[in-house]
Amino acid sequence: MKQPDLTTLIPVARGDEPADLILTNARVVNVFTGEIDETNIAIAGGYIAGLGDYEQARETIDLAGAYVAPGLIDAHMHMESSMLPPPQFARLAVPHGTTSAIIDPHEIANVLGAAGVRYMIEAARDVPLDVHLAVPSCVPATNMENAGAELSAADIEPLLADECAVSLGEMMNFPGVVFGVPEVLEKVKVGLRKRVDGHCPGLTGKALQAYIAAGISNDHESTVLEEAREKLRAGLKVFIREGSAAKNLEALLPLVTKENKHRFCFCTDDRHPQDIMTEGHIDHVIRKAIGLGMDPVTAIQLGSHFTAVHFGLTRVGAVAAGYQADLVVVEDLKTFEVREVYRGGRLVARDGCYLGSESGARIEPPIDSVRLPADLSVASFAVPAPLAGAKIRVIGMQLHQLITTERIEEPTVSEGAIVADVQRDILKLAVIERHRATGNVGVGFIHGFGLKRGALASTVGHDSHNLTVLGTNDADMLLAARALEETQGGQVVVADGEVLAVMPLPIAGLMSTESAEVLVGQQQALRNAYRTLGSPVEDPFMTLSFMPLAVIPKLKLTDLGLVDVDRFDFVPLVVEG
Amino acid sequence: MKQPDLTTLIPVARGDEPADLILTNARVVNVFTGEIDETNIAIAGGYIAGLGDYEQARETIDLAGAYVAPGLIDAHMHMESSMLPPPQFARLAVPHGTTSAIIDPHEIANVLGAAGVRYMIEAARDVPLDVHLAVPSCVPATNMENAGAELSAADIEPLLADECAVSLGEMMNFPGVVFGVPEVLEKVKVGLRKRVDGHCPGLTGKALQAYIAAGISNDHESTVLEEAREKLRAGLKVFIREGSAAKNLEALLPLVTKENKHRFCFCTDDRHPQDIMTEGHIDHVIRKAIGLGMDPVTAIQLGSHFTAVHFGLTRVGAVAAGYQADLVVVEDLKTFEVREVYRGGRLVARDGCYLGSESGARIEPPIDSVRLPADLSVASFAVPAPLAGAKIRVIGMQLHQLITTERIEEPTVSEGAIVADVQRDILKLAVIERHRATGNVGVGFIHGFGLKRGALASTVGHDSHNLTVLGTNDADMLLAARALEETQGGQVVVADGEVLAVMPLPIAGLMSTESAEVLVGQQQALRNAYRTLGSPVEDPFMTLSFMPLAVIPKLKLTDLGLVDVDRFDFVPLVVEG
Repeated sequence: MKQPDLTTLIPVARGDEPADLILTNARVVNVFTGEIDETNIAIAGGYIAGLGDYEQARETIDLAGAYVAPGLIDAHMHMESSMLPPPQFARLAVPHGTTSAIIDPHEIANVLGAAGVRYMIEAARDVPLDVHLAVPSCVPATNMENAGAELSAADIEPLLADECAVSLGEMMNFPGVVFGVPEVLEKVKVGLRKRVDGHCPGLTGKALQAYIAAGISNDHESTVLEEAREKLRAGLKVFIREGSAAKNLEALLPLVTKENKHRFCFCTDDRHPQDIMTEGHIDHVIRKAIGLGMDPVTAIQLGSHFTAVHFGLTRVGAVAAGYQADLVVVEDLKTFEVREVYRGGRLVARDGCYLGSESGARIEPPIDSVRLPADLSVASFAVPAPLAGAKIRVIGMQLHQLITTERIEEPTVSEGAIVADVQRDILKLAVIERHRATGNVGVGFIHGFGLKRGALASTVGHDSHNLTVLGTNDADMLLAARALEETQGGQVVVADGEVLAVMPLPIAGLMSTESAEVLVGQQQALRNAYRTLGSPVEDPFMTLSFMPLAVIPKLKLTDLGLVDVDRFDFVPLVVEG
Repeated sequence: MKQPDLTTLIPVARGDEPADLILTNARVVNVFTGEIDETNIAIAGGYIAGLGDYEQARETIDLAGAYVAPGLIDAHMHMESSMLPPPQFARLAVPHGTTSAIIDPHEIANVLGAAGVRYMIEAARDVPLDVHLAVPSCVPATNMENAGAELSAADIEPLLADECAVSLGEMMNFPGVVFGVPEVLEKVKVGLRKRVDGHCPGLTGKALQAYIAAGISNDHESTVLEEAREKLRAGLKVFIREGSAAKNLEALLPLVTKENKHRFCFCTDDRHPQDIMTEGHIDHVIRKAIGLGMDPVTAIQLGSHFTAVHFGLTRVGAVAAGYQADLVVVEDLKTFEVREVYRGGRLVARDGCYLGSESGARIEPPIDSVRLPADLSVASFAVPAPLAGAKIRVIGMQLHQLITTERIEEPTVSEGAIVADVQRDILKLAVIERHRATGNVGVGFIHGFGLKRGALASTVGHDSHNLTVLGTNDADMLLAARALEETQGGQVVVADGEVLAVMPLPIAGLMSTESAEVLVGQQQALRNAYRTLGSPVEDPFMTLSFMPLAVIPKLKLTDLGLVDVDRFDFVPLVVEG
């Protein structure tokens, strides 16, 4: 952790030198005792010098009885899900009271490897948000697809040694741990020099014991109370996740008691920009927890202090002498509407408005990560017709679920090729390797999107983030792919040879260079355009982004072809009759 | 922290390989949830593989419903106070359930510097007790005396970098921190790479804020509840001390609640061998806490888990998968009588009997630290008579207190010298520099010991551990000093030219090479001998050991002379009339 300049801080604490800033008449949320302390807060050099009857200061602000909580901390998140790099993410999240986050830049790592991770760290400097690194542990997620990079134990080592690194990020390959796969254990061993974050949805019994025995320290994947209870008892810190897609707070909250609360933290995992803008970030989780009956001070502890303790962040997560002056001011603890946010003693947000510096520009974002083969053409998407009587495997998309089904369908053939069939809602899906222009294109068919015309494409495709295209015809699919090559990534809607809307995500094909406001506007434009294509799906790009994820059953498509996840192997498109 | 061999542990956890040992029908104290879990414990390679219905093992022991708590941890102690080096200390403390200790080898560091610290670490290897190092921060304690060594920030740095080091040890120089003395802050800065332990008796208000602002993380010096409450609120972890001399448990216990209990730990600080033998160690603190009304599981958390968490010891302090199999078996939680102790999965004590290995012999103890000048003679203790009408400063010893008074008395003169006066209970006190044979001898007079004949001497003399001699005549004083030179340290009682009893402490003049049993016998013999000299003082050697400690008021004696601690300066023995 960064340390304060003690020669500045101590004389102010002692009362011999004036503070930079004194907040008077504060009701401090004491995360150590659970009490509310009525006191003044003296700040010097960005840190809290002391709490007490401090009076001398260059600036004094009377809080008139408002509550002061420590800056909020997200225990586990992928910033890429906000589609914003650190400076823009900070603009969005800081007004909600978030002053620290443990980020696992797993998405950009799949595109750019260690360089992507280092970009996220560098871009977070000078931003009024402390970014702590969980080094991505599972890049690539599988060997069933081509990612842009991979991180071995040897690659992880120097990243983990960085001062800002707090852990090896979520070890999603829990089967690899439980079955003791050497390369996986090698990574765990490196990670244990700091700590290893977990990810083990549904793991139970002896398999869970084996995972924990390896030294995994936390998990954020519990969705039901009994699952979280077993993990809690077994020794994992339980990160209660409340993100945009996965919402576990209501299910898990009843597990938290005074006796065990120090074993819990709040996290968002994945949170979309519009949701942060309209609902909030960790402050939203706190409000929701309070609404569900949790004591406000406990909610603040889970949303800040306990996370700092878990990750050994000794200078954040409390309003006390020696702590960084990261403060959230609210008028009412129960409504927990963030009024002001101080970070390092500076006011960085008031009434939802960001007042921090425009920074993070000192590093150029990586914006050249979409490389398509020069000879990509409509022919790249063509699927020759099979023998008569053969059928095809079709991905069965299910609303609001990451899990797909496998459907065996009659192919619709036209001019010697299998084509999309709008009538039967069997559309064409293609995954184009986009990192090294290898020319790999996986082509398959999918049911459930209900598109009547046009195509859509995205460079956000978990976890390798190849270019995924869904379409009713090959020409529009090609146009969509080329449009994203031009913007160097993003999401696009095309129809009848025309680009209807595009949201550029040029940073690694994952994040915008625009502000959150512009980005959200672009997302809305995409949605409007998409609705003209006749599909009932609410958030098609989100759904589309999980179609290449070959670790979630049943049938998925990567740039290497169709994957039967249950068998963990490729399967042919055509099922001979 | 040491890490388990995952390739051994994981298959056992998974249930695919037999455990080394399974403890069946255990009632496990779950320090995470506060619950009691009825289960089996599978152990492999010294670590807990898992909790659950494990059955296959090379050895199975049916605990028949006995409780299993994690091995106990002393959060702050000076092992030298037990007068036993690590192997012998382990023999004494392990049967009481202590399997880890954070030791600050401050006493031996004052004698031997970094070499003494390294001896303590090395001697603790292969001992069934994990010794974690708090690097002594204040050696020497003052510049008013000659210690055997000093530790600068540069000396501290490599010690703190050792894997076994968890903190910079208690920063007793709290005025130095509060007033920002550069050399002191230099040490704190080095310490903050891990953590800095505190020591700030009675510190309050802004001075306390300043001390904490520096980054101090804990304190074990609270003696009254309000003091501890202020420190707790201000952010210090409160170590509740219950040692041989300082007993703070009863005063502080009412402060602990479910809401704040994770901010407390138990420690002993200084515990004498006889007390450990007859009453216990951390188990004694737990029993006493339960007797005072604390819930047993909470008491166990303070005596183990919370200490492990505070010091970042991730593999001890819980009975859970991946934790070192350090276990305490008790039949009844309320009486908490330790039945068996496992350390690293091996049974190391049963019913109070040590069953561990005879180890730690692989390093030779340092036994040549008492170096007296060759020309030491009765003349070394002589004090020339002053001018007529002059008086002398006499140390006023007070029973059961470390604080002394200053008495101004008429000197008793004989043959041109000031001599001890048994009738008036004014005895002679000498402090002989014993580390480098400089020939420095500080001589003074003391009231309160009530000795009628003979002399006593000790090489335990806080904090520099020079040779302290108290006597009724110079000849016996010389004999006492020479006797301890011969044993290379210890404590001795002489009278009329004869050594009545001696307890050798040849390791740095502080610790025995004998077993605890022999040592306690020698202590008893010293006591018996002392009683024949006519003094009513209960524990004269303990009292004597604090007479050179020039940081506790009022009048003290070092090898450099009489010190007025309130003025923090030397004062002459003679007060001119």
